[in-house]
Amino acid sequence: MSQPQTANAPKPTTAITPTRQDDFPEWYQQVITAADMAENSEVRGCMVIKPWGYGIWELIQQQLDVRIKATGHKNAYFPLFIPLSYLEKEAKHVEGFAKECAVVTHHRLEAGPDGKLVPTGKLTEPLVVRPTSETIIGAAYSRWVQSYRDLPILINQWANVVRWELRPRLFLRTAEFLWQEGHTAHETAAEAEAETEKMLLEYEAFAKNHLALPVLTGEKSENERFPGALRTLCIEAMVQDRKAVQAGTSHFLGQNFSKAYDIKFLGREKQLEHAWTTSWGVSTRLIGTMIMAHSDDDGLVLPPRVAPAQVVIIPVIPKEDQRDAVLDACRKLAADLRARTYAGEAVRVEVDERDLTGSAKGWEWIKKGVPVRAEIGPRDLASGTAFVGRRDKGVKEKGSVPLADLVAGIDGILAEIHATLYARAEARLREHTRKIDTKEDFYAFFTPQSKNEEKPEIHGGFALTHFAGGVELEEKLKEDLKVTIRCIPFEKTPEAGTCPFTGKPSKQRVVFAKSY
Amino acid sequence: MSQPQTANAPKPTTAITPTRQDDFPEWYQQVITAADMAENSEVRGCMVIKPWGYGIWELIQQQLDVRIKATGHKNAYFPLFIPLSYLEKEAKHVEGFAKECAVVTHHRLEAGPDGKLVPTGKLTEPLVVRPTSETIIGAAYSRWVQSYRDLPILINQWANVVRWELRPRLFLRTAEFLWQEGHTAHETAAEAEAETEKMLLEYEAFAKNHLALPVLTGEKSENERFPGALRTLCIEAMVQDRKAVQAGTSHFLGQNFSKAYDIKFLGREKQLEHAWTTSWGVSTRLIGTMIMAHSDDDGLVLPPRVAPAQVVIIPVIPKEDQRDAVLDACRKLAADLRARTYAGEAVRVEVDERDLTGSAKGWEWIKKGVPVRAEIGPRDLASGTAFVGRRDKGVKEKGSVPLADLVAGIDGILAEIHATLYARAEARLREHTRKIDTKEDFYAFFTPQSKNEEKPEIHGGFALTHFAGGVELEEKLKEDLKVTIRCIPFEKTPEAGTCPFTGKPSKQRVVFAKSY
Repeated sequence: MSQPQTANAPKPTTAITPTRQDDFPEWYQQVITAADMAENSEVRGCMVIKPWGYGIWELIQQQLDVRIKATGHKNAYFPLFIPLSYLEKEAKHVEGFAKECAVVTHHRLEAGPDGKLVPTGKLTEPLVVRPTSETIIGAAYSRWVQSYRDLPILINQWANVVRWELRPRLFLRTAEFLWQEGHTAHETAAEAEAETEKMLLEYEAFAKNHLALPVLTGEKSENERFPGALRTLCIEAMVQDRKAVQAGTSHFLGQNFSKAYDIKFLGREKQLEHAWTTSWGVSTRLIGTMIMAHSDDDGLVLPPRVAPAQVVIIPVIPKEDQRDAVLDACRKLAADLRARTYAGEAVRVEVDERDLTGSAKGWEWIKKGVPVRAEIGPRDLASGTAFVGRRDKGVKEKGSVPLADLVAGIDGILAEIHATLYARAEARLREHTRKIDTKEDFYAFFTPQSKNEEKPEIHGGFALTHFAGGVELEEKLKEDLKVTIRCIPFEKTPEAGTCPFTGKPSKQRVVFAKSY
Repeated sequence: MSQPQTANAPKPTTAITPTRQDDFPEWYQQVITAADMAENSEVRGCMVIKPWGYGIWELIQQQLDVRIKATGHKNAYFPLFIPLSYLEKEAKHVEGFAKECAVVTHHRLEAGPDGKLVPTGKLTEPLVVRPTSETIIGAAYSRWVQSYRDLPILINQWANVVRWELRPRLFLRTAEFLWQEGHTAHETAAEAEAETEKMLLEYEAFAKNHLALPVLTGEKSENERFPGALRTLCIEAMVQDRKAVQAGTSHFLGQNFSKAYDIKFLGREKQLEHAWTTSWGVSTRLIGTMIMAHSDDDGLVLPPRVAPAQVVIIPVIPKEDQRDAVLDACRKLAADLRARTYAGEAVRVEVDERDLTGSAKGWEWIKKGVPVRAEIGPRDLASGTAFVGRRDKGVKEKGSVPLADLVAGIDGILAEIHATLYARAEARLREHTRKIDTKEDFYAFFTPQSKNEEKPEIHGGFALTHFAGGVELEEKLKEDLKVTIRCIPFEKTPEAGTCPFTGKPSKQRVVFAKSY
């Protein structure tokens, strides 16, 4: 396989241009294109998720669905459309989403005077394409709940939602996206809060164990809460330019939605009460987070559990008369690997039999982020080996491995790759999370040190800072430095101190960062 | 367990009122309600699919997805919205869907003069909520295809679609529904036609092997073709009132969409050609078809492969001090059954530990259509037995079965239930499919024999009739008798004859029926 780097070159060539260092946002876009994961469509802000990207989403869905069901939830499906009058019932909620709603106003098309089609059949009440489903699901729960015996309701929905985005970015922020949204109703506040926390911990475990993503867990400040929630808990990841990505949220909604949608029940003491509700969700944004966290200047790097192919086998056929023997060996290796399991699932293997050079194929799979590449050529047949490369190592670091060892050890290799990706991300998070105690240090931490605003080193990282200001101070810091409170971290023994901005006493440190 | 029927009663009571005989459409609605599968929402024509109904859809999805992937297709995801100008490019297509399109015209909400929210942010071009995705996917394929080497493209999408329905019916015809839509592009017409036929046969096999549904396979007449298709193939089921349900379709689109959306490629001879495309889909309608085909006057009857629970175990606890021993035995049986497989999947078992009478529980699971019910009470503990009922038999037909036999034989029992349901549906299809050779017999076959238009005996069945008329005659028969050509069946040796309506020679018989 040809190598893009040579020992004498002043700067190594990479498969992706620009590099992370040169232009992180553009590098991100190019990684997605090079891996053939997704593309922008003709509808502004809406993406096409291509098979490689959708394959990753299918694995996320299947694996997270197991966790959601294991914690007692069942899946259901609610309407895409929300009557405007329903959306209006929870004042803060509608205020939060009004600016980004796609609105259906007509239900047919007819030829106008110029022959062109125009919308006709005006609806008596406009319908909003769901930006989230608390409202329509609240209306259903109010029909379903009469007695405390009907509680809890523990339901999850896998669906598409629409939030009109002015500055879309593939996977991270799109007008339409795919997600799961859990919606539960409970008899008591304590039970609902426990549910809110439990599902956040599920998200944390999923990020760690499936996506190799270390995340901070904590609570959002009032300013960053979900519209209508009493508390919003979140998982926040740090990506390679040291910005934060909110990767999942879990909301304690109190009785706000049950009062707005009339979810009432006859309690144990025969009194009429409002239910306590929660909602929680993760989306295709997880894919964007994962790309920004793990990928490198040669393209996508996939954590093995969500890789559509965990091993790709590349036949190397210099002469036509060697084709059958090489292909047979490749197929045999594929069958042997598929009979093995990693993390409870059969190992996913592709044999790339296309009529391309081994080098072209190799680079394609590198850019697609496949964890393990195994080349088999005529010389390997006699020695019973393959030439193996790992995506967590440099593209040059390849070596001959006996087939028997590769098959027997595949689960260990994949587990090691996962561990390596996790360790790297965790080291980054640790290194770039700083306790900051003065306003000067805080401003310095987040102030660009170069003219190129997109250079990763300028983003500082996560600042652990005491804070006793309010919404106004949060707004000022956002304006000055583009930073927000990402979360108030869960701490077993919070450390009290002094807010460097106001001089007031603070109960604990919060995390400030720039974010996507 | 208490029985609703008594020997002296003049008419047996049933769990569902009305019965199939009394009012088939209302019976259908009541079966869905009694099984807690779905309900109408506040949005006209849009349903809420509740956990029991959605659980069935998840199984259909998972099992059909395996077949779709095994035939070389990959899943992807395309935008929900279609710009109006894209829809307009294929004239017949837009004509077919224009009357039922939900149209997004605005992208935000703002308070109007009276404080009420009104749509603002008018879009420069209206967006149609996809009724089907040939148009938006065609636009993507035109970007992806340059050379014959890029073909075939074999992609499937699981998605929601919207077709404004004036007369909705749960599962069978709803404004929003869930489905899969396959979209493929090929180098040659022959390849695309082979794909169209191959996927129809997949649907036939799925209906037979997973839903216990025998179906006719054939081709639609011109009048019933998908808008924009050259050929529409279909599977048609007969349900218990002898009407037809179109359960799946597969379309050969020729070059119509590739010309409208500019899917061109450089061919092997360096000539520029348009691709040949297909599309094929099945939807949540399959659930409605299955209900109408198999259920009875006591409620839902589920084919075992798509039953969210295949076995329910009901503890019978007359005295509190027997609770632990009975529950232990139930849980042990559940664990033993879950270790067994049926049709390649672990047997799905529920233990109903709720604090209700055994009779109340029993009836609930009967109405939910669970294939096997096993009651365990104190007397069963000593004998090592369970009292077992099967949903394909009468509710009274229950018997004592040694636990070891139940566990060892569960796959055989489930297979037998599947076979019974299939055999019943097939006998119905055979009995009520008649060769009809005169106009008089044809009109008599489809003319109500009672005043109650909904009595099942009035619907006749499937008429195998020669036909050499055209679209106008089809329209007349539809007006007179509410019948349409359901399909021109695939026949290895089609029998020629004379059209009873026109007297003209006919190449083969077609199938006429009333339909949902």
